[in-house]
Amino acid sequence: MADPRSVEVLKEALQRLPGVGPKSAQRMAFHLLERDREGAQQIGEAIRHALNKVNHCRRCNNFSETELCHICGSGRRDPARICVVETPADLEAIEQAGIYQGTYFVLMGSLSPLDDIGPDQLGVDRFLELIGSETVDEVILATNLTMEGQATADFLIDLLEPRGVPVTRLARGLPMGGELEYMDPGTLNQAFEGRKPVHG
Amino acid sequence: MADPRSVEVLKEALQRLPGVGPKSAQRMAFHLLERDREGAQQIGEAIRHALNKVNHCRRCNNFSETELCHICGSGRRDPARICVVETPADLEAIEQAGIYQGTYFVLMGSLSPLDDIGPDQLGVDRFLELIGSETVDEVILATNLTMEGQATADFLIDLLEPRGVPVTRLARGLPMGGELEYMDPGTLNQAFEGRKPVHG
Repeated sequence: MADPRSVEVLKEALQRLPGVGPKSAQRMAFHLLERDREGAQQIGEAIRHALNKVNHCRRCNNFSETELCHICGSGRRDPARICVVETPADLEAIEQAGIYQGTYFVLMGSLSPLDDIGPDQLGVDRFLELIGSETVDEVILATNLTMEGQATADFLIDLLEPRGVPVTRLARGLPMGGELEYMDPGTLNQAFEGRKPVHG
Repeated sequence: MADPRSVEVLKEALQRLPGVGPKSAQRMAFHLLERDREGAQQIGEAIRHALNKVNHCRRCNNFSETELCHICGSGRRDPARICVVETPADLEAIEQAGIYQGTYFVLMGSLSPLDDIGPDQLGVDRFLELIGSETVDEVILATNLTMEGQATADFLIDLLEPRGVPVTRLARGLPMGGELEYMDPGTLNQAFEGRKPVHG
């Protein structure tokens, strides 16, 4: 350890960021201390502020500074339609597409036994509470088409079916701009299985 | 912006880290707020602490919490031998090899006009002051063999030569474990040019 103690401590702390190993942490610490102390200050303050302010919306579980997030609190969104997503980033992608006027439930992850993330970590209880306490016309499962996302969707379907809640899943097939030459077999399989008659 | 304000502010702040774009910043913010609030606290405190404590050694310019770093302050290092490196990480690599008993000067970067890093940003003045105020038997240039590192070394050589300071550069050639098949032409060229007679 040629670096002074507080630089070592900083390098260690930065490794708690996802995707940051010893080498990146060293580069980051050097950058912050030598090139951008103002940026370092900004990061420190943003963390402190966010830890104080950010909680979860009591209805949809998304990050929120208020008890109800601005989507759940908006009078213009259909509360009877609930789209279940894994993360705030997924929600944001749907919002930016501007194609959906219902509300959400944010699981904050997907079932992943290897990472110790089970139903409790995902707030599934809170989701079932929401389903039980409101009139729900449709639950749209919009988890990722990864192993974890699919397992999570299957898990939720098993919970929702006995309750008689109408559940849908997002369509699967070729993405926009997709070239068949580069599609994986799974996607091609879904595109063939889900093919539709042409009305014309 | 579907995220609350303080999450957006955190995402923006994290993008001041080198190599972190919008997507990584989002992943980091999510991780810190949802999975590792303790880690977030730790990072915030480590930054605050380091900003308060870490300064530069007045002799070698390396990060230090004390006026003289532990290498310059040690009685067991040869102060008449000064190895010039670009960053604390380079210094640490040499220290870990355990092959050098002299002292250092840390430039804190390399000449890089594109990044607005000139001689002033590298503390070249302080280096010349050090050279002028102490007896120096040897300056070992150990900048990287990149364009910037080489330009920095050339720049320092031009400054040191008129002062009559003995200057050396690290040997260039094949690295340990290097396979000729995979070496670039520049390395092979240096290995040939620097070839030595075998005594035996």
